[in-house]
Amino acid sequence: MTDISMIDAAAARLKGHARRTPLLSSPFLDEIAGRRVLVKAECLQHTGSFKFRGGWSAVSALAPEVRARGVIAYSSGNHAQGVAYAARQHGVPAVIIMPSDAPRLKVDNTRTLGAEVVLYDRANESREAIGARLAEERGLTLIRPYDEPQVIAGQGTCGLEIAEQAAEQGVTGGTVLVPCGGGGLTSGIALALEARAPGLKVRPCEPEGFDDTARSLAAGEILRNPRMAGSLCDAIVTPEPGQLTFPILSRLCGPGLAVSDDEALRAMALAFLRLKIVIEPGGAVALAAALFRPDQLQGDTVIAVATGGNVDADLYRTALERFGTP
Amino acid sequence: MTDISMIDAAAARLKGHARRTPLLSSPFLDEIAGRRVLVKAECLQHTGSFKFRGGWSAVSALAPEVRARGVIAYSSGNHAQGVAYAARQHGVPAVIIMPSDAPRLKVDNTRTLGAEVVLYDRANESREAIGARLAEERGLTLIRPYDEPQVIAGQGTCGLEIAEQAAEQGVTGGTVLVPCGGGGLTSGIALALEARAPGLKVRPCEPEGFDDTARSLAAGEILRNPRMAGSLCDAIVTPEPGQLTFPILSRLCGPGLAVSDDEALRAMALAFLRLKIVIEPGGAVALAAALFRPDQLQGDTVIAVATGGNVDADLYRTALERFGTP
Repeated sequence: MTDISMIDAAAARLKGHARRTPLLSSPFLDEIAGRRVLVKAECLQHTGSFKFRGGWSAVSALAPEVRARGVIAYSSGNHAQGVAYAARQHGVPAVIIMPSDAPRLKVDNTRTLGAEVVLYDRANESREAIGARLAEERGLTLIRPYDEPQVIAGQGTCGLEIAEQAAEQGVTGGTVLVPCGGGGLTSGIALALEARAPGLKVRPCEPEGFDDTARSLAAGEILRNPRMAGSLCDAIVTPEPGQLTFPILSRLCGPGLAVSDDEALRAMALAFLRLKIVIEPGGAVALAAALFRPDQLQGDTVIAVATGGNVDADLYRTALERFGTP
Repeated sequence: MTDISMIDAAAARLKGHARRTPLLSSPFLDEIAGRRVLVKAECLQHTGSFKFRGGWSAVSALAPEVRARGVIAYSSGNHAQGVAYAARQHGVPAVIIMPSDAPRLKVDNTRTLGAEVVLYDRANESREAIGARLAEERGLTLIRPYDEPQVIAGQGTCGLEIAEQAAEQGVTGGTVLVPCGGGGLTSGIALALEARAPGLKVRPCEPEGFDDTARSLAAGEILRNPRMAGSLCDAIVTPEPGQLTFPILSRLCGPGLAVSDDEALRAMALAFLRLKIVIEPGGAVALAAALFRPDQLQGDTVIAVATGGNVDADLYRTALERFGTP
């Protein structure tokens, strides 16, 4: 299983390939939150989300002769782009299985990054089954989006950077809020911080109505979301916490926080106004929790991870129309 | 006058206060430009533009007893915010003179950053005269937006970072495109690169119809813009190149490039889609030139500085509505 030595090894493989994304802040956001807010801008990572870290980590960890046959991934979009770009940079083929209702931008981007895209019906088909069949037929290696030790290790490199950058700003204690889908990033960051900044505690953030992780942590067992469609934060809606990630989350993280779609849109608009970064709804739930759940947080500093920025222009315009005037 | 030792000294004073902004890229932008495009994201600097560098440099260079009486600045917005925030961080008062037609966001931001804002009529009043009078009355030190050696030195620290970051990416030769108003940033970067990366040559970028610097460089003498209003790129519209900056620009930079307002808006939309950063129109003219003036550039790499991101939500929505669909 993933541990700090695997995360360190992933960091070594990612060096010179992944960006060290900045830890941003604004006095305007501090004022809203009533405490210091630091934002880890993973939307500035290659392909517009932290998923490049896990994709690169997994692809680079394969034996060369295995890697040469290619990789396959299923994803609502960001994992797909991360894996596709990592495969292209390694010069190997990538097949990506995406839901037919994924944002067009994500589908187009993934194709332009050199991957073959296979679409499936989210309501009636199992992406896992499709992935397993294609992997067997073509000799491809399946790169799971979160329940995969090397992917968790890659996402954990974001946690190493948070530990370093927080220390550079004099922060050694506080809460780290992480948008949580299957839990790959959340568990990876939690493992990295456990080793390198034990004063920083991770809390997963989710959309209201799709808070499977928060409810699972509270119950002490894996619980499912009652439904999969209907959230603007589609990038982080998964059926349930992962088999590999949940034990890590249980040991190190919680309790979870949940925000509304409107709060995510408002956080996106504030990131536009005050940080000059583009965040997608799912990538904004941690910032939204930092800003709009002050009573559920402790301490004078909160770190929020802004996980991705792959949002359609139409939805972004809506966020600015509704919340873009200070 | 500003030289590399002044820039190094400014960098030492800025250390731990200014952000080392990232040098971003996207394969999608490379494809449009037909060459590698690296974007120095100064919109991620404190207060949303590179101007914080010059503001901090100038305020921090004052003798403590002079600084304690306060500073005053005139600006279309970004310089105001940079000086206001630098003054607040130093615990000294700031008075900012702004045109009455400046974007409301910039006026509000400057007030919220703790400055006293004095508005003037851009068409009928001289901001220089107002600034000189207030400075004398209150014992304030005037911080000029570009014709000020310590401001040029502060902006030059952006050039030091470009030299380092380009070398990290294996780039030692090519063109550096810089949005140019009065020329403080352009001349500061040019001085830094002359000393630290002489293979990188600076070319100023301006809005069409407001290309006083390009025409001045071609003529070998300072020429004025025929008008001051009518560009979306208001942040970089100045009457003419500075008395201190123009000799530096003449010696080290050119020829200038000019882009249309529509091209600036399209570059803003592409920065949204591909880099996940927010750029204002004036801050996008260098990226626009990198993308849409391929025949006027040489070499296989171009570096574009994205100088600022302080744009009203309404104008940003227009840019996305018109150019936000890939």
